[in-house]
Amino acid sequence: MDYRIEKDTMGEVKVPATAYYGAQTQRSIDNFKIAQDINRMPKEIIKAFAYLKKAAAITNGELAGLAPEKVKLIGQVCDEILEGKLDNEFPLVVWQTGSGTQSNMNVNEVVAYRAHVLNGGQLSDKDKFIHPNDDVNKSQSSNDTFPTAMHIAAYKILMETTIPGIKKLRDTLAQKSREYMHIVKIGRTHFMDATPITLGQELSGYVSQLDHGLKAINNTLAHLSELALGGTAVGTGINTPEGYAVHVAGKIAELTGLPFVTAENKFESLAAHDAIVEAHGALKTVAVALMKIANDVRMLSSGPRSGIGEIMIPDNEPGSSIMPGKVNPTQCEALTMIAAQVMGNDVAIGIGGATGHFELNVFKPVMIYNFLHSARLIGEGCVSFNDKCAAGLEPIEKNIQAHLNNSLMLVTSLNTKIGYYKAAEIAQTAHRKGQTLKETAVELGYVTPEEFDAWVDPKTMVGKI
Amino acid sequence: MDYRIEKDTMGEVKVPATAYYGAQTQRSIDNFKIAQDINRMPKEIIKAFAYLKKAAAITNGELAGLAPEKVKLIGQVCDEILEGKLDNEFPLVVWQTGSGTQSNMNVNEVVAYRAHVLNGGQLSDKDKFIHPNDDVNKSQSSNDTFPTAMHIAAYKILMETTIPGIKKLRDTLAQKSREYMHIVKIGRTHFMDATPITLGQELSGYVSQLDHGLKAINNTLAHLSELALGGTAVGTGINTPEGYAVHVAGKIAELTGLPFVTAENKFESLAAHDAIVEAHGALKTVAVALMKIANDVRMLSSGPRSGIGEIMIPDNEPGSSIMPGKVNPTQCEALTMIAAQVMGNDVAIGIGGATGHFELNVFKPVMIYNFLHSARLIGEGCVSFNDKCAAGLEPIEKNIQAHLNNSLMLVTSLNTKIGYYKAAEIAQTAHRKGQTLKETAVELGYVTPEEFDAWVDPKTMVGKI
Amino acid sequence: MDYRIEKDTMGEVKVPATAYYGAQTQRSIDNFKIAQDINRMPKEIIKAFAYLKKAAAITNGELAGLAPEKVKLIGQVCDEILEGKLDNEFPLVVWQTGSGTQSNMNVNEVVAYRAHVLNGGQLSDKDKFIHPNDDVNKSQSSNDTFPTAMHIAAYKILMETTIPGIKKLRDTLAQKSREYMHIVKIGRTHFMDATPITLGQELSGYVSQLDHGLKAINNTLAHLSELALGGTAVGTGINTPEGYAVHVAGKIAELTGLPFVTAENKFESLAAHDAIVEAHGALKTVAVALMKIANDVRMLSSGPRSGIGEIMIPDNEPGSSIMPGKVNPTQCEALTMIAAQVMGNDVAIGIGGATGHFELNVFKPVMIYNFLHSARLIGEGCVSFNDKCAAGLEPIEKNIQAHLNNSLMLVTSLNTKIGYYKAAEIAQTAHRKGQTLKETAVELGYVTPEEFDAWVDPKTMVGKI
Amino acid sequence: MDYRIEKDTMGEVKVPATAYYGAQTQRSIDNFKIAQDINRMPKEIIKAFAYLKKAAAITNGELAGLAPEKVKLIGQVCDEILEGKLDNEFPLVVWQTGSGTQSNMNVNEVVAYRAHVLNGGQLSDKDKFIHPNDDVNKSQSSNDTFPTAMHIAAYKILMETTIPGIKKLRDTLAQKSREYMHIVKIGRTHFMDATPITLGQELSGYVSQLDHGLKAINNTLAHLSELALGGTAVGTGINTPEGYAVHVAGKIAELTGLPFVTAENKFESLAAHDAIVEAHGALKTVAVALMKIANDVRMLSSGPRSGIGEIMIPDNEPGSSIMPGKVNPTQCEALTMIAAQVMGNDVAIGIGGATGHFELNVFKPVMIYNFLHSARLIGEGCVSFNDKCAAGLEPIEKNIQAHLNNSLMLVTSLNTKIGYYKAAEIAQTAHRKGQTLKETAVELGYVTPEEFDAWVDPKTMVGKI
Repeated sequence: MDYRIEKDTMGEVKVPATAYYGAQTQRSIDNFKIAQDINRMPKEIIKAFAYLKKAAAITNGELAGLAPEKVKLIGQVCDEILEGKLDNEFPLVVWQTGSGTQSNMNVNEVVAYRAHVLNGGQLSDKDKFIHPNDDVNKSQSSNDTFPTAMHIAAYKILMETTIPGIKKLRDTLAQKSREYMHIVKIGRTHFMDATPITLGQELSGYVSQLDHGLKAINNTLAHLSELALGGTAVGTGINTPEGYAVHVAGKIAELTGLPFVTAENKFESLAAHDAIVEAHGALKTVAVALMKIANDVRMLSSGPRSGIGEIMIPDNEPGSSIMPGKVNPTQCEALTMIAAQVMGNDVAIGIGGATGHFELNVFKPVMIYNFLHSARLIGEGCVSFNDKCAAGLEPIEKNIQAHLNNSLMLVTSLNTKIGYYKAAEIAQTAHRKGQTLKETAVELGYVTPEEFDAWVDPKTMVGKI
Repeated sequence: MDYRIEKDTMGEVKVPATAYYGAQTQRSIDNFKIAQDINRMPKEIIKAFAYLKKAAAITNGELAGLAPEKVKLIGQVCDEILEGKLDNEFPLVVWQTGSGTQSNMNVNEVVAYRAHVLNGGQLSDKDKFIHPNDDVNKSQSSNDTFPTAMHIAAYKILMETTIPGIKKLRDTLAQKSREYMHIVKIGRTHFMDATPITLGQELSGYVSQLDHGLKAINNTLAHLSELALGGTAVGTGINTPEGYAVHVAGKIAELTGLPFVTAENKFESLAAHDAIVEAHGALKTVAVALMKIANDVRMLSSGPRSGIGEIMIPDNEPGSSIMPGKVNPTQCEALTMIAAQVMGNDVAIGIGGATGHFELNVFKPVMIYNFLHSARLIGEGCVSFNDKCAAGLEPIEKNIQAHLNNSLMLVTSLNTKIGYYKAAEIAQTAHRKGQTLKETAVELGYVTPEEFDAWVDPKTMVGKI
Repeated sequence: MDYRIEKDTMGEVKVPATAYYGAQTQRSIDNFKIAQDINRMPKEIIKAFAYLKKAAAITNGELAGLAPEKVKLIGQVCDEILEGKLDNEFPLVVWQTGSGTQSNMNVNEVVAYRAHVLNGGQLSDKDKFIHPNDDVNKSQSSNDTFPTAMHIAAYKILMETTIPGIKKLRDTLAQKSREYMHIVKIGRTHFMDATPITLGQELSGYVSQLDHGLKAINNTLAHLSELALGGTAVGTGINTPEGYAVHVAGKIAELTGLPFVTAENKFESLAAHDAIVEAHGALKTVAVALMKIANDVRMLSSGPRSGIGEIMIPDNEPGSSIMPGKVNPTQCEALTMIAAQVMGNDVAIGIGGATGHFELNVFKPVMIYNFLHSARLIGEGCVSFNDKCAAGLEPIEKNIQAHLNNSLMLVTSLNTKIGYYKAAEIAQTAHRKGQTLKETAVELGYVTPEEFDAWVDPKTMVGKI
Repeated sequence: MDYRIEKDTMGEVKVPATAYYGAQTQRSIDNFKIAQDINRMPKEIIKAFAYLKKAAAITNGELAGLAPEKVKLIGQVCDEILEGKLDNEFPLVVWQTGSGTQSNMNVNEVVAYRAHVLNGGQLSDKDKFIHPNDDVNKSQSSNDTFPTAMHIAAYKILMETTIPGIKKLRDTLAQKSREYMHIVKIGRTHFMDATPITLGQELSGYVSQLDHGLKAINNTLAHLSELALGGTAVGTGINTPEGYAVHVAGKIAELTGLPFVTAENKFESLAAHDAIVEAHGALKTVAVALMKIANDVRMLSSGPRSGIGEIMIPDNEPGSSIMPGKVNPTQCEALTMIAAQVMGNDVAIGIGGATGHFELNVFKPVMIYNFLHSARLIGEGCVSFNDKCAAGLEPIEKNIQAHLNNSLMLVTSLNTKIGYYKAAEIAQTAHRKGQTLKETAVELGYVTPEEFDAWVDPKTMVGKI
């Protein structure tokens, strides 16, 4: 490979001749040979930096004398990053410095050097028109840019991927719930037969879980909307011009279309990432809900002949490499694996969040890596589960009816007529003798056949629908 | 021990002669010999049941024909439970049925049999005036009472213990922050010297964390305010009179003084406890914040002679059984241990929440046990940390000053004057030579002594205070 | 209450007149008002200290000139502690100093003052015959005694409660596995019907899990057998006589009957508790296995009429306060709740273990509290599940037979005769048409009825038994 | 893009014309659009499958009549996979069916179709010389191949990456420990000054942690060495020839050079992955140790002027984008982030392991994904930390000496001369007055200056070295 020489405050470094990045990026590549093929800094963070650097350049132009041509060039490169044109220029991994300094410098270098080229320069020029630190990073520190990029990336992915994905699934389930609201089936508690419920009611519980999950996520957006930018090195805003923090947050809000504001307290913003911990707590709550829903779906669709078999889900692929004709609830499996992953990610984020010291938390990359992972898995997982499973869910009425008719727990409606103890005796006796409830109830002399039919009617046992 | 014979639908059981509980409680004692001396069902749950049973009795009197004398007697026993008079009557453990049925029946039995005695009866009477199932549990199921008790207990402890505890600590830190707002000290990022900050600013970050933590908890109260009661066995409300759910939630709100409402979707309320998962996510966020704060306090107070030693905290007890005169940051240690516990509890709750099936989650006791544990530890831990540590926190100005004067990172204020690279050269040279910044800066010829003094002033480096 | 005055290096403290403990215990009670009614330092730790203090006194008598009458008196009090006679003298909570110093001093005080009384003195005597620090704590520090007590308590509970509990369940399952080795039933993968298996084979998988779990626990005992004692303040053994560490470990081994040895590296023993982390990892592995086993049991026993219903488990108690005659798999529920708790405890222990600094880990109490909790829950939970559930587990052969005969996956045995694709076609067609495999196979012309009967025989599909 | 038509038991599918994979792989791509750019099935699993398929082909040749030319062709493609020549043919993600069936089929298809081409055929041929199911997957099921691949991949990465990485760091620390064994420094407990220790002793604690960690990993290898292969669909070994399981495990052992054996109980091997849970528990133990070690290193190297500053670590890169000349402990940060990730992965693995049902655990991909992630992060993280940090660690003797001389805890050595209480009085008085210990001790009249010098000598307080 061809190289050129770049230089930083520590000296010279050989960099691939055509790379837009410079010395500090190269040092990080050399110093952190850890999972380089699988754990690049998430692309969402790089794009968040592009918004940030552009907004900072504009603000520096207005408040800190950054030359207009520099502002323009920086903005142009940021747009290229947002369009995905420079994806290969960001090779650094999550496992670097805990402040994300190296990724901030990676962006600073790429923006500066690409801008220099856009401006007619050569990568091999010793002096570049735009300086990574003095221009691109002007009025900034890694310590306030990286957490700002974390919040931009987190907020955006929630709005663009996670929430729409959950909503899509929620809407399908809500529609199914309405559609099957009158299909009376056996309820199950403790995995055991219980009193009747309708399929629509059962599904409505899932909808309610997802609605509450969406509310939970929404509740955490306010903290995520607070940006650290303007705090610079330790939160005091050293080396920023008057009015900078408010102004730059406004620019970021404008560029992203999201309601970002400057954080009231920058010391918290650098030293702690409770907003990430809190928001991921909401994602974990959704993961817990999805685990429940997907488990129910796979259990309700189990069989086809020796399971519960009350619903049918689409056959998407052959299920077994050895058992011919087998079809499995694979979307449920992907979704529950995702739930497990999110619950694990939650712990990594909590530990990272708890282990900051003094003016800086240095678990930033691992925290946002896990956050973005979860947010994306939930969003895309819900869409996949929706499109390939939930949307095709259908009742198997024959089995539903058979289970319902068999149930001993219909006896519950006799409680208010003959008391709990006698009702229990009927159920226990019927179970022991393998009889129907009605036979037993009449035999024991507690009700007449007519009373039984009048009092024990599954359709009246499911409440108002 | 003397015994009497009690009976349930499965037959006769020997019960201690003077116990107010009956057959089903005794069966649970016999069937679940697991950690009986250390893991009783939390008292907060028992008291929540007392509110619930009283509210249900009143509502049953109004809507379902429960006789007025029964309503009154049930209410009387519930009041006794709330006063703590019957604490020994609730011996069951967390590790029982996952629906909490046995604790519901424990309460039903104690209320019924104690009421019978209040009514002039004897525990040994074969028939009691009040029936545990038909009267005390009227219009109820364990499946809706236990989750209702969970929400009552959770909401109450947050309001009475957790939030006030956090607030107390928050207010102390806020007052200290104001008091020390002008004490300029060195900032530290990556555990390394950084640009200056004031002690008050540093403390304000903790205040902001706790403020956000309180908001996070508050955001979860709405979901906790929803009560399952009225859903009975599977969420359909079987065996409840018209209007019951709304009415009884209103009564509970009235009795507790808390804004409880009936849950819109009872199927969720029985089958999932996302409200607990979500609210504990907020508690975990606070735990993460407390870990950070307590770690900082112990590190800042480290020494007394070979540590950082910038603050002093109270000497509460001899610190070592072997090292005479040693004093340790023991309140920090208790608080960080609590944080670790809460982070562990969060996982237990998540797993419990994720593993419900169909119409019922059967991890109810383990979920609420962990929730109440965390809520109490945080509340009482904050008060202890506040009273015995934070309230006595004081700066050690001599050390603060010495550290500040030494710092190489004051060079940062030269960035905007001479550029990042030359400033770096000054810092690196001073570090290598063991010189002061000023000496080096002048020697290298980048600034005059006068410029240095004008430009490098820690007091101007901390921003607006 | 009556008080007497006790004194430590910080001054005078009022102590209950009849308490055997002294000033430092009282300070801890006053300073740590956190969950005092529910989180006392586990009794297993107090008893471990009794072994330790007795062994240390004997060793100090032999190597460090502790007077024989003092050795004897100290030993006597330790025996009283082991007999449970002084249980009320140890009121301190887990949430204290992270070194456990206060519990060490609690023991030192109780031993010293009780010994003074045994020696004919009065609690109110200003000078006591035996000194908590200079005599009882001689050649010791909290920093080496508490971790020693942790290992003693952990090792003992594993040997006395956890391992025997797991073994008991393992043996029952092994016996059931042998008993039901020839009952052919349908296998289920992905919760869907699969090729046949025998009930005994299915149970043998659980036995194998528990066997491996026992091995996993055993693998961690060696690290737990290493004792910190002799390291004193920082691991260097300051203030210990020559030969002390080896000698005292030998005495502890003798008194407990367990193979304790002195740790090779005392710096690790004080500063880290990886042995606890590692051993709890094995407990968590067992918890994971128990979750799987108990889930299977509840699912296999589901019904009674609309579930899988292939096994029957004992009816231990009425299952519902509203549904008469309902019986639930309550032991499965307790055991799975325990599994969730242990998985949460594992995280608390991991965080505690990871957060030690320099020469001392100060998360000792929270680590051992969680460890002992898990060890006990698993041990007692297994016994409860064994006695009240597994021991009474029986097949329901009628249902097993019906499920087996229905299964489409018997087609798998045709793979080697007619190829996977044609076999799949048979299964899919039978499923779509609601036919039997045989009908379809013959209709499609792929086999003769005779071939089908010869080739598709569930009994030959379960391998060698 | 050009396509060809492939077909499976569900019908026809369009596949990229040049892809070696077929219909089932394509279905999975279409059905699981979840994180496709970042979560491919780990390459370690694909390579493990290559060993497995080759071993199975050889065994099938010997025991089940697979034609020699097929055996040879299959082996050839497997070799190509191991050489990395077919990396792009495995596009499937972790979030697929929980049995990993689709990745098994992906391998089956690629091996079959590539073999067909090697044999002179065309990808567009309707019939291929080698069949994915009947030949490549012969005597196998996803249910036994995927867990076999999990164990192969896990065992291999532990041996090749994780253990060597830990050992490398361990050896460096051991060498540094020996080198600095005589540098006496202050010890720190509770983050507070304590009695002296040598730097070498301190480092030896880390070595001991890593030694125990390596033992912990080694203890789990036996369970990992057990292979599921031969269990096929449900553990019974249906459709395998006599002797197959033992034989194929031997072949895999031969090909990999690792001591694999056939699992004694195949029902466990398919239905549970406790071996992965257990082994990852050991990895988590190491992560906990690394967190402690890296935290100590960053704290000991803190400063350079206002921290603890007792050791120096290499300056690898500029540390700050705003603070010139700042150098940070970035390797410590990467390693502690890795520790947090591993602790989170542990929870995901535990949940996955706990949630299998009946004859199959369907969290296989998420479990092995997290396992391999942790194993690699630890291995590569240790090497990075070793090479760029630990190997260059050096004492800063000036600071070490200054801290040591200042320490009040040297008083501890007076305990055995004048008793704990008087020693405490000396330390407290010296602290209050800001005096040296000696001044105070003599002033208080407890020792003569000569006695003090004789008794209080840090060099004698560190025990035998």
